[in-house]
Amino acid sequence: MPLSPEQQAEIDTLRAAPQPTLRAVSPGLEAHLYTAHQVLDHGFVRVIDYMGDDAAICQAARVSYGKGTKSVQNDEGLIRYLMRHWHSTPFEMCELKLHVKLPVFVARQWIRHRTANVNEYSARYSIMDREFYIPAPEQMAAQSVVNNQGRGEALQGEEAARVLEILKTDSMRAYDHYEEMIGQDGQQGLARELARMNLPTNIYTQWYWKVDLHNLFHFLRLRADAHAQYEIRVYADAICNIVADWVPFAYKAFEDYRLGSVTMSAQMVDCMRRMLKGEAVTQESSGMSAREWREFQDVIEKS
Amino acid sequence: MPLSPEQQAEIDTLRAAPQPTLRAVSPGLEAHLYTAHQVLDHGFVRVIDYMGDDAAICQAARVSYGKGTKSVQNDEGLIRYLMRHWHSTPFEMCELKLHVKLPVFVARQWIRHRTANVNEYSARYSIMDREFYIPAPEQMAAQSVVNNQGRGEALQGEEAARVLEILKTDSMRAYDHYEEMIGQDGQQGLARELARMNLPTNIYTQWYWKVDLHNLFHFLRLRADAHAQYEIRVYADAICNIVADWVPFAYKAFEDYRLGSVTMSAQMVDCMRRMLKGEAVTQESSGMSAREWREFQDVIEKS
Amino acid sequence: MPLSPEQQAEIDTLRAAPQPTLRAVSPGLEAHLYTAHQVLDHGFVRVIDYMGDDAAICQAARVSYGKGTKSVQNDEGLIRYLMRHWHSTPFEMCELKLHVKLPVFVARQWIRHRTANVNEYSARYSIMDREFYIPAPEQMAAQSVVNNQGRGEALQGEEAARVLEILKTDSMRAYDHYEEMIGQDGQQGLARELARMNLPTNIYTQWYWKVDLHNLFHFLRLRADAHAQYEIRVYADAICNIVADWVPFAYKAFEDYRLGSVTMSAQMVDCMRRMLKGEAVTQESSGMSAREWREFQDVIEKS
Amino acid sequence: MPLSPEQQAEIDTLRAAPQPTLRAVSPGLEAHLYTAHQVLDHGFVRVIDYMGDDAAICQAARVSYGKGTKSVQNDEGLIRYLMRHWHSTPFEMCELKLHVKLPVFVARQWIRHRTANVNEYSARYSIMDREFYIPAPEQMAAQSVVNNQGRGEALQGEEAARVLEILKTDSMRAYDHYEEMIGQDGQQGLARELARMNLPTNIYTQWYWKVDLHNLFHFLRLRADAHAQYEIRVYADAICNIVADWVPFAYKAFEDYRLGSVTMSAQMVDCMRRMLKGEAVTQESSGMSAREWREFQDVIEKS
Repeated sequence: MPLSPEQQAEIDTLRAAPQPTLRAVSPGLEAHLYTAHQVLDHGFVRVIDYMGDDAAICQAARVSYGKGTKSVQNDEGLIRYLMRHWHSTPFEMCELKLHVKLPVFVARQWIRHRTANVNEYSARYSIMDREFYIPAPEQMAAQSVVNNQGRGEALQGEEAARVLEILKTDSMRAYDHYEEMIGQDGQQGLARELARMNLPTNIYTQWYWKVDLHNLFHFLRLRADAHAQYEIRVYADAICNIVADWVPFAYKAFEDYRLGSVTMSAQMVDCMRRMLKGEAVTQESSGMSAREWREFQDVIEKS
Repeated sequence: MPLSPEQQAEIDTLRAAPQPTLRAVSPGLEAHLYTAHQVLDHGFVRVIDYMGDDAAICQAARVSYGKGTKSVQNDEGLIRYLMRHWHSTPFEMCELKLHVKLPVFVARQWIRHRTANVNEYSARYSIMDREFYIPAPEQMAAQSVVNNQGRGEALQGEEAARVLEILKTDSMRAYDHYEEMIGQDGQQGLARELARMNLPTNIYTQWYWKVDLHNLFHFLRLRADAHAQYEIRVYADAICNIVADWVPFAYKAFEDYRLGSVTMSAQMVDCMRRMLKGEAVTQESSGMSAREWREFQDVIEKS
Repeated sequence: MPLSPEQQAEIDTLRAAPQPTLRAVSPGLEAHLYTAHQVLDHGFVRVIDYMGDDAAICQAARVSYGKGTKSVQNDEGLIRYLMRHWHSTPFEMCELKLHVKLPVFVARQWIRHRTANVNEYSARYSIMDREFYIPAPEQMAAQSVVNNQGRGEALQGEEAARVLEILKTDSMRAYDHYEEMIGQDGQQGLARELARMNLPTNIYTQWYWKVDLHNLFHFLRLRADAHAQYEIRVYADAICNIVADWVPFAYKAFEDYRLGSVTMSAQMVDCMRRMLKGEAVTQESSGMSAREWREFQDVIEKS
Repeated sequence: MPLSPEQQAEIDTLRAAPQPTLRAVSPGLEAHLYTAHQVLDHGFVRVIDYMGDDAAICQAARVSYGKGTKSVQNDEGLIRYLMRHWHSTPFEMCELKLHVKLPVFVARQWIRHRTANVNEYSARYSIMDREFYIPAPEQMAAQSVVNNQGRGEALQGEEAARVLEILKTDSMRAYDHYEEMIGQDGQQGLARELARMNLPTNIYTQWYWKVDLHNLFHFLRLRADAHAQYEIRVYADAICNIVADWVPFAYKAFEDYRLGSVTMSAQMVDCMRRMLKGEAVTQESSGMSAREWREFQDVIEKS
């Protein structure tokens, strides 16, 4: 369980004290503020603050004096138009600040998205907590045999048990040794900035992460995707739910024009047109490599 | 006067309707929201939205569950420490969104600060307003004779009158021609995206500009500086006043450790130390070029 | 003609003196170095420097010790895979530095691409040249009647002549006044930083612009597009030709998977699949708005 | 030793084949190309490519047609002026691409510098090597008692031996378990993307890192500083030596105006001036906190 009673009490205090503001308010997101959405075994995502709502996107697009809204219907149409035609700057006018607890190996993937602001818990300055990610049995997956960068079926039986035992035992031993090295009872104690290097990357860290809506959508498109590693995808999924409540029009447009969209190459477009005219196109006559052809089949046939 | 009655009415409506929020609220900045602070003859700066306050800087620096504040005094000390030691990421956790009306030649300097979000009024899509910056008499300055990139005393008498006349007449004529070219009475009308090119850069444009506090401080340090062109400095000054009301601790630290600070080169530090020990250092014995030596004199002697 | 004999002589000198290097060399781009490719009436694009080639993209993708190349064929396959699957970081490992001369109103669009390095000729410090963009007759276009943000047919006859006359006369008068104001014969002379504001935005400026290949492709996708304003599109087209000679594999992949690609929304994909199965889909049964439906027709029918 | 004979042979091949180029060439940096400079026990820094030299900084600052150089002396003066007055864009016109091998916990600090391009060895796709950072005895430091975020004296005797034993044993055991989990002999083998999470952060990773000179100087100022953790400082020091050979004028200016410079707060400047006039200033009369006063003593007294 990620939150202690003291932490929960702090959150409750914050949630009990609304204050008046003249800013744009998103009722859907206010309901999430400070609450921890659990992810993986010890992780979470919490909304700390936000700026803007659906109307703010339109207001910026129109460089308006007032609310910039003509009608709600009108706003939705404009947002869909902006998304479809890659007008990204109005979406940059909304901002989200999250508090995230996540395993270090997930943090290492996450941080590759550079257009965001980050404040991470410092293992030079502070002592890490004894919390490690141990995959659930159904996530203890074998190496994929078709994709070097993916996973296959869940391990079974003895092999699964052996892996689980290794992960648990090594985590606990590493933390015992970490405590032993930094301990100052009868010894000087190793510097924290050195002792931390003995900890495996399934240990949990925490950070504040702030990002604008355009760059957040880019993050979600890559990380809520089926090709993303499961352990980061569950964070992206949790954030998708939050964004859907924050800016419902923008999120729906994102689903239709990004998440659910397909980009077809010049060759794919050509083949599709020929097929719509009745031609029976084969890989040989398509101009695509075998690999692209398989990807094309996925595009046109998936039911 | 920059605002029409309709625009003022829109602002009044927005200011009349506070809503409850659970987010951090800065009372000092709420008082500014939507109000237009006039800058130059037709320009303004208006706060549209913000995220965070002084406490939010500390909360991020501590990666806290709750407010992250131990005491107000404690917060100020932490903020000053962060500013002094160039720990910039906690300041990135605050964000400000402005609506700015400004001459195009000022916008061209401003946009060189790339770490910000911008939505500008589109002269491809819309028709520009007939509003041009005409300098006040005391700002109609001569070219500096000591600094290629600066201005000297205000022009006087006939020369001043002639320049003023040119700027006014050319602005009005350019706008007349602009209207004439795009007009569709009895003719097709030139495309807006072409007609705009005939307008001089003292015409006013508008944009929404959103930036985090760290990058805003960087902008203010360069643009509220005595070496910045007057016409952008007045915008920076107006924003300084706003920020001082938004995050008073952070702004005070910014004044002490950035705006009012001095960076001394290795040579300057060496000379200062020798002088404090009683040595009479000259340019010859300083290791500095004539130009650096003059800059050093400014540092140590300015009363 | 954009280049003076002195400028041409400087270029010739640079082109006459090859030096040995151990770095990756792109013979195709060496042939372009320093040469000015004319764009519009007085503008140009010149390659000043570059880093990397097609092989360097693969080398970075593989984090290699040596050249990182297994075979040329292998490299092309890898580059196409990276482009198709949005693995953008290896493309960031190539860099291009251009010297561009362009009208100010084009520069204002261009600079909105923020992930690049820019050094512009300073009109605070220096005196601008008397060079203005005057559209060729076939580019003197009317406002589009179907698209607020576009242009229609070229103006004809008297209207075209009148517009041409306005643009030419206003440009020359503005420059005459600029010179008159900054002149120091018998007067102090207005500061350059002020006098420049009287110049219209069809005046030419110059800058050094440096960008990585990934962000350059993003720029080209938006600006070499049919919806981009003609006056920036011609610069994008000129750069496309340069990039095709620099990194031929990457450019071909860019043509196939970006320039010539089509992104279909979730609704479009669904309709396409239904149509391929023989269903006669109409706008009513498509789930698309009228506008999206028209865009879909373009995707599937364009021959 | 970080390089295998095969890797050394690849490097030797690359170094044996100079090609002609018309680009700016830095002889000082050509001598470093591809060679691995060893850092820590198994790490290195290798220059893979570069763009520009000292003259290129001046050429961009002047937006020149040709080399942009008037004389070598003139160039040095301009570079020092640009550095002293924070004109950063000309320095962005040079670029450096490095291949770095470094422990994961160092990589996690390094990546916080976001304005750079990175391609890291993928532990999802590939198998990590058995190489771990084990501190040399003199770097096995105790936690600092004055600075929460620093280290004190080296551990001695039995405590040092115990820590060394833990680090070595845990690293080897973690790698044994990593191999055991991914092994496919008689079992399916755990997915690489999961197995890697058991590895501690003293394991070495590798990346290609590309950065412009302005942002590189910013990185070096923070990471070659005495307050930076030793394990990243040694990388910064190695890069400083490389940059000094690449752009000697710019590097000297960086040493004088950044590395060796001191930024004094408004209060410090005031006190210094009073002291230079003969006043005996104390902490009480200084307006500084106790902590700032100590920092001020360091500025004025360090010999």
